[in-house]
Amino acid sequence: MAPKGDNVVVPNMKLENLLSMKGGKGASSYANNSQAQARHARSMFHLLKETLDGVQLSSPEEPFVVVDLGCSSGTNTIFMVDAIIKHMTKRYEVSGHEQPEFSAFFSDLPSNDFNTLFQLLPPLTNIDGGSMEECLAADNHRSYFAAGVPGSFYRRLFPARSINLFHSAFSLHWLSQWDHQVPESVLDKTSAAYNEGRVFIHGANEKTTNAYKKQFKSDLSSFLRSRSKEMKKGGSMFLVCLGRTSQDPTDQGGAGLLFGTHFQDAWDDLVQEGFISREKRDSFNIPVYASSLQDFRQVIEAEGSFGINKLELFKGGSPLVVNQPDDAAEVGRALANSCRSVAGVLVDAHIGDQLSEELFLRVERRAANHAKETLEQLQFFHIVASLSFT
Amino acid sequence: MAPKGDNVVVPNMKLENLLSMKGGKGASSYANNSQAQARHARSMFHLLKETLDGVQLSSPEEPFVVVDLGCSSGTNTIFMVDAIIKHMTKRYEVSGHEQPEFSAFFSDLPSNDFNTLFQLLPPLTNIDGGSMEECLAADNHRSYFAAGVPGSFYRRLFPARSINLFHSAFSLHWLSQWDHQVPESVLDKTSAAYNEGRVFIHGANEKTTNAYKKQFKSDLSSFLRSRSKEMKKGGSMFLVCLGRTSQDPTDQGGAGLLFGTHFQDAWDDLVQEGFISREKRDSFNIPVYASSLQDFRQVIEAEGSFGINKLELFKGGSPLVVNQPDDAAEVGRALANSCRSVAGVLVDAHIGDQLSEELFLRVERRAANHAKETLEQLQFFHIVASLSFT
Repeated sequence: MAPKGDNVVVPNMKLENLLSMKGGKGASSYANNSQAQARHARSMFHLLKETLDGVQLSSPEEPFVVVDLGCSSGTNTIFMVDAIIKHMTKRYEVSGHEQPEFSAFFSDLPSNDFNTLFQLLPPLTNIDGGSMEECLAADNHRSYFAAGVPGSFYRRLFPARSINLFHSAFSLHWLSQWDHQVPESVLDKTSAAYNEGRVFIHGANEKTTNAYKKQFKSDLSSFLRSRSKEMKKGGSMFLVCLGRTSQDPTDQGGAGLLFGTHFQDAWDDLVQEGFISREKRDSFNIPVYASSLQDFRQVIEAEGSFGINKLELFKGGSPLVVNQPDDAAEVGRALANSCRSVAGVLVDAHIGDQLSEELFLRVERRAANHAKETLEQLQFFHIVASLSFT
Repeated sequence: MAPKGDNVVVPNMKLENLLSMKGGKGASSYANNSQAQARHARSMFHLLKETLDGVQLSSPEEPFVVVDLGCSSGTNTIFMVDAIIKHMTKRYEVSGHEQPEFSAFFSDLPSNDFNTLFQLLPPLTNIDGGSMEECLAADNHRSYFAAGVPGSFYRRLFPARSINLFHSAFSLHWLSQWDHQVPESVLDKTSAAYNEGRVFIHGANEKTTNAYKKQFKSDLSSFLRSRSKEMKKGGSMFLVCLGRTSQDPTDQGGAGLLFGTHFQDAWDDLVQEGFISREKRDSFNIPVYASSLQDFRQVIEAEGSFGINKLELFKGGSPLVVNQPDDAAEVGRALANSCRSVAGVLVDAHIGDQLSEELFLRVERRAANHAKETLEQLQFFHIVASLSFT
C-alpha cells in the first residue's frame, strides 16, 4: 500500500473541531492535512455529482438550500458547498430553468469553531446587481447566502420542508448520546457490556460491541427521521462515513487499528507505569462506530423515508500523511497525530493535558517501532450513500 | 437627572462585540451592564409588541422567521428573540391558527463572537414530540430553530421573501463602508471634509458632518432595500438606534458628549504630551451617526418599500452605570468604560493597546474632574421605528 496515495480524511477532517491547535502543530503539518482533505473531497466529487443530478430543481421563487452536516471549521466545507452550488447552477442553466437564489447552512455541534469558519467564508457577490455568470466568474466570492447552525444532527435542526440537499462527510460514525458519548452500559461496571480493559470496541466482548451497534443504529435512524421532516419533496442526501468490511463488529477495520492497537497499548502503559488506575482507563471509550454496509442499509430501509440510489463501501486508503515512508519516526508521529486529531480533546478532558501528552508520546513510540506494519495495514473503508426523498 | 434611572444600552450592547474583555473588566462590572441591558430591553418591549401585533400570521406549512440584526454575542439577543417568539405563539393561539414552526436568525458582522452566542443558546425542545404548551413551559429550552448569519446588514443576508420579522437594536447608527468605517473624504487631508483636529463630528465643520450624513442616509437606504427583498408580504420591522433632538448634525447629543468632550480632550492630551502626532489623531474618527427623526423619515419615504406605523424619538437616559453618583472617581470610570466599550477595539487598532490604555486613563481623569456635569448632561435619545411591508 502506498501511504502517499489516496489519503483518507476521517481524523483530519475533525482536526480543527476537536483539537485545539496549541503547541507542537506546525503550519506545514496542517497545510499537509488540508491538502489531503481537498484531494479526497475532489476524488469523491463524481459520486456526489450523481446525487446532485438527481435532485429536483426548485422553482425560481424559492431558494435552493444546501446543508453541510458536521461541517467543522476549515476550508473543506466551503470548498464542497461551493462545488455543489456551481454544479447546481450549471444544471439550472442547461435545463433552461431560471436560476433560483442559493442558500447554504453550515452545521456542527455548538462546540465547533464557527468564528473561524465565518471568517474563512468569501464575501457575498452582489446578489442584486450582476448576472449569475458574473457571480460564478468572481472566484473569490460566494454566490449563496450562508448561515451557521449549532446543534446535533441526531435531532431536528431546520424547519419542515426547507432543505433541497443534505451533505455529510465523515461525521455519522460519531455516536450521539449528546455530543460523542458511548452507551452508558459500556461504562457501567455492573453491566455485562462493561468494556473492561479496553478503550474501543475493536476486539472487545460481544455485549459491549452490541451496545455500540444498537446505539449506532438508533442514532442513524434518528438522523434519517429528522432529515425526512426537514427535506423538500424531491430532495437528496449524500452521506459518507466510516464503514467496515467485516461482518463482525468487533473487527472495526481501520478505526480498530487506529484505536485498538498502539493507542490501546499506550493506555495500558499508563496503567502499568502507575500514571492512572485501571478504572480510569476503562472509563474512557472512543465513541466511534464503523458500520457494516448491511446494517446501514437495514436502518435506512426500516426507517423508510428515503429511497436508496446508491449505497456502497469504498476503499478510502490511509489516514496517515507521510512524506518519507521509510522514516519510522515520521510514521510514528503521523499515527500519533492522526489518533490525536480525532481523540485528543476527549483524552485531554479525561486525563488532563499532561497525561494526554504522555499517552500520545507512547502511541508515537509504539507506532514507530511497528512502522512498516502500521503503514501497510492502516486502511479506511467508507460507506457512501446517495438517498432521495420522494 | 437620575443616573440610576433608565439606563441606555448603546455602548454596552456592543461590549462583547467590540471590546475584548481582557484585564480591568471585573465580572461584577459586566453583570451590571447586563442588568442594564435587560432592563432596557424590557422597557421597550411594549413598543415592540405593537409591531408584533401587526405582523401577518403565516400559514402552518411555512415557518415563522425572526431575525435579529446586529445581535452581538450576549444573552440580550436570546432574551429578545425568545420574547418575540413567545408573543407570536400567543397570537397564533388566541387567533385559533395552527402554530407554525419558528426559526430565528442571529446576524452580525463576521468578527462577532458567534461561538459564545451559540454556547449561550438553550437547547432545542423536542420539536417533534411534545405540544407547544410543553415547549413554552420548558423554560430552559428554546422552541425555535436557530442559525447565525455573518455579514453586513447594509447588503443582502437572506433569500428573497423568507423573513417575517426583522428586529435591530442599537446597530443602525454604525456607518457601513465595510465594517464601521467613516467616509473616505473625512480622512483625506486634501478634502474640504477632512475632520482636522477632531475624532468625531460633534462640533466639526459642516462639510465633514455632511459627509457623515450622506453616508448614513445612503446606508439606511441600502439597509431598507435589502430588507425589502428579503421580507415576506405582511412582514414587519422594529428598529431602534441612536437619534438626536437637534436639527444641526454637528450637535450629536449624547453621542456627541461621549465622544466630543473628554474623549476628544484625551486625544488632544496624547498629542500635547508627544505620544502621537496630530495626523495620527486626525486619522481616527468614530463611525457613528445619530440621525434626526426627519432625516430618518425622509430616507424611509424616499426608499419607498415600507409603510411607517410608528416613528418616534424617545428619551433613553444615560449610558452610565453608577452606584454612587457622588463618587467622582466612579463617574469617571463609568464614562471611560462606556466610551471604551463602544470605541475600545477601534482605538486599540489605531494606536495599539498601550497608548489606548493611556488614552482611556485620561478620559477617566477628565470625566472625574467634571463628574457632576457628566452625570447631568449625558443623555441618549433613540429613534424607534415600526415599519411594515405590504
